Amino acid sequence: MNKSDFENLLTAQAAAIEGWLDQYLPDLPLEEGGSATKAARYSLLGGGKRIRPIMLVQSASLYKVPELVYKPFAVALEMIHTYSLIHDDLPAMDDDDLRRGRPSCHKQFDEAVAILAGDLLLNTAFEIMLRFLSQAPSTNKNQIEAALAIAESAGGRGMIAGQCLDLHYTQEEITPLQLTGMQRKKTGELLSAAVVAGAGLGGADANTLENWRELGLALGQIFQMTDDMLDVTSEEAILGKSVGKDERDGKRTYVTVFGSEMTRVLIKKKTEEVTSIIETLRREGLEMDFFESLNAYLPGRVK
Amino acid sequence: MNKSDFENLLTAQAAAIEGWLDQYLPDLPLEEGGSATKAARYSLLGGGKRIRPIMLVQSASLYKVPELVYKPFAVALEMIHTYSLIHDDLPAMDDDDLRRGRPSCHKQFDEAVAILAGDLLLNTAFEIMLRFLSQAPSTNKNQIEAALAIAESAGGRGMIAGQCLDLHYTQEEITPLQLTGMQRKKTGELLSAAVVAGAGLGGADANTLENWRELGLALGQIFQMTDDMLDVTSEEAILGKSVGKDERDGKRTYVTVFGSEMTRVLIKKKTEEVTSIIETLRREGLEMDFFESLNAYLPGRVK
Repeated sequence: MNKSDFENLLTAQAAAIEGWLDQYLPDLPLEEGGSATKAARYSLLGGGKRIRPIMLVQSASLYKVPELVYKPFAVALEMIHTYSLIHDDLPAMDDDDLRRGRPSCHKQFDEAVAILAGDLLLNTAFEIMLRFLSQAPSTNKNQIEAALAIAESAGGRGMIAGQCLDLHYTQEEITPLQLTGMQRKKTGELLSAAVVAGAGLGGADANTLENWRELGLALGQIFQMTDDMLDVTSEEAILGKSVGKDERDGKRTYVTVFGSEMTRVLIKKKTEEVTSIIETLRREGLEMDFFESLNAYLPGRVK
Repeated sequence: MNKSDFENLLTAQAAAIEGWLDQYLPDLPLEEGGSATKAARYSLLGGGKRIRPIMLVQSASLYKVPELVYKPFAVALEMIHTYSLIHDDLPAMDDDDLRRGRPSCHKQFDEAVAILAGDLLLNTAFEIMLRFLSQAPSTNKNQIEAALAIAESAGGRGMIAGQCLDLHYTQEEITPLQLTGMQRKKTGELLSAAVVAGAGLGGADANTLENWRELGLALGQIFQMTDDMLDVTSEEAILGKSVGKDERDGKRTYVTVFGSEMTRVLIKKKTEEVTSIIETLRREGLEMDFFESLNAYLPGRVK
């Protein structure tokens, strides 16, 4: 797929997912306690790349999983991602005023509502998956395991642990190995859960799931490295969030730890690793064109 | 059961549950991202009445549900309750420095860690239920529905909506009906989910579950009314949290809206309602002594 076709595909899928999100978190009147819903919808529906749900949809589709099955999981994943952004942006955390080109949730509303909006999105993610599981005509172990994979990737040994390490290392020295471990937890696990859940819904066996997991972690690392590069090279208007903030805040990123040039080298190395995993999965008869295109596209985000 | 036997029972059950909680949220080294775990354990294991898990255990036991089945749900429920306390106590919310007789989570640690500790407890609650569901030898629809009932009670039409209304009404006039509706969402739904989940795990039918739901809501209301009374009548050392704070903060409580005398009348009225629901459930052959004792015990908390 050429770059422009691929970008069109990403845009179309992101638009479809925006519609699902809108449908799964309907507005609620303020007099029924809807202030958190309003704030959550503000953050959830503010655009965004939707890379996690897209990866879930793409991996599930390779196994012919029907849309009605993968949709609640894709929606839940994006809600969990959005809750983490809202809580990360809070004054006590990264104290970021700008997100996706607009005021962050606590700036647009207030801190109390932003905390509750994050809580709401996390809780709603699980409500949606559990409601799907409870309504499924016959309950499928693969579906429960997909929900569990998402839960674990977001939890105390996944994303939340990564967030804790990020706070910790802001005050401490960090080795390259510690940085890689922190980023893996902070962003890699949830991205990886996207493809593990997608393929898991399709009944992929444990060995194949391990390959998907490695693919997700490697793509997650490329994603993070290119994000860190964009923090130093982009203009705020394009990036949609504050630029150069990582360094001002003493954040430990690939760029601040390895430097820009070494990060470029690492991106190239990870891209080759992804190519190799894609070949392995292709040998199982899977049509891996989307992920091949994604692997070509991500490094190109950095000029 | 006389009052002293009942208090001994509550104490013994609370101690058992403390042990389960300790086991389901093991300590994690700081270098693996354990700062939120440490803070979550501080709040989770700081004692507490454990009334929600106790109610779940008691209702499940009436249906002969094995401990290994109800335990993860009881643990999840208490984790959700604790996360809500941690986030409620934050400066942007109720700004409370004292909880269960000790510094609240953000005072003992810091705000960032307290936010993450709350997130961790909410996420872990679902991880625990989903892990149980995925490991069960045969997946049971009742178990999925118990998890869903807990999720819904904690969510955007339950506890989080109640919390939003609480913030909203702090600045606005409130009618008695609005107060009752807010409290029902804020504390009633989760308490009610305890017995709905417990009886649901035991396979209770929809009509019976509706009775359990009404019982839980009524007990929840008594619980809240007696709590509001204790806020004005207790000493801080006994209550373990700040006293008289509701009025200073302009909080809308049963006492500030109805006055103390009317609240006593309402407690008596609700107690009679619970007695009547208990009789209905007893006619189904259920041994309701625990809930009868609880119904006698709760109003006695107010001198």
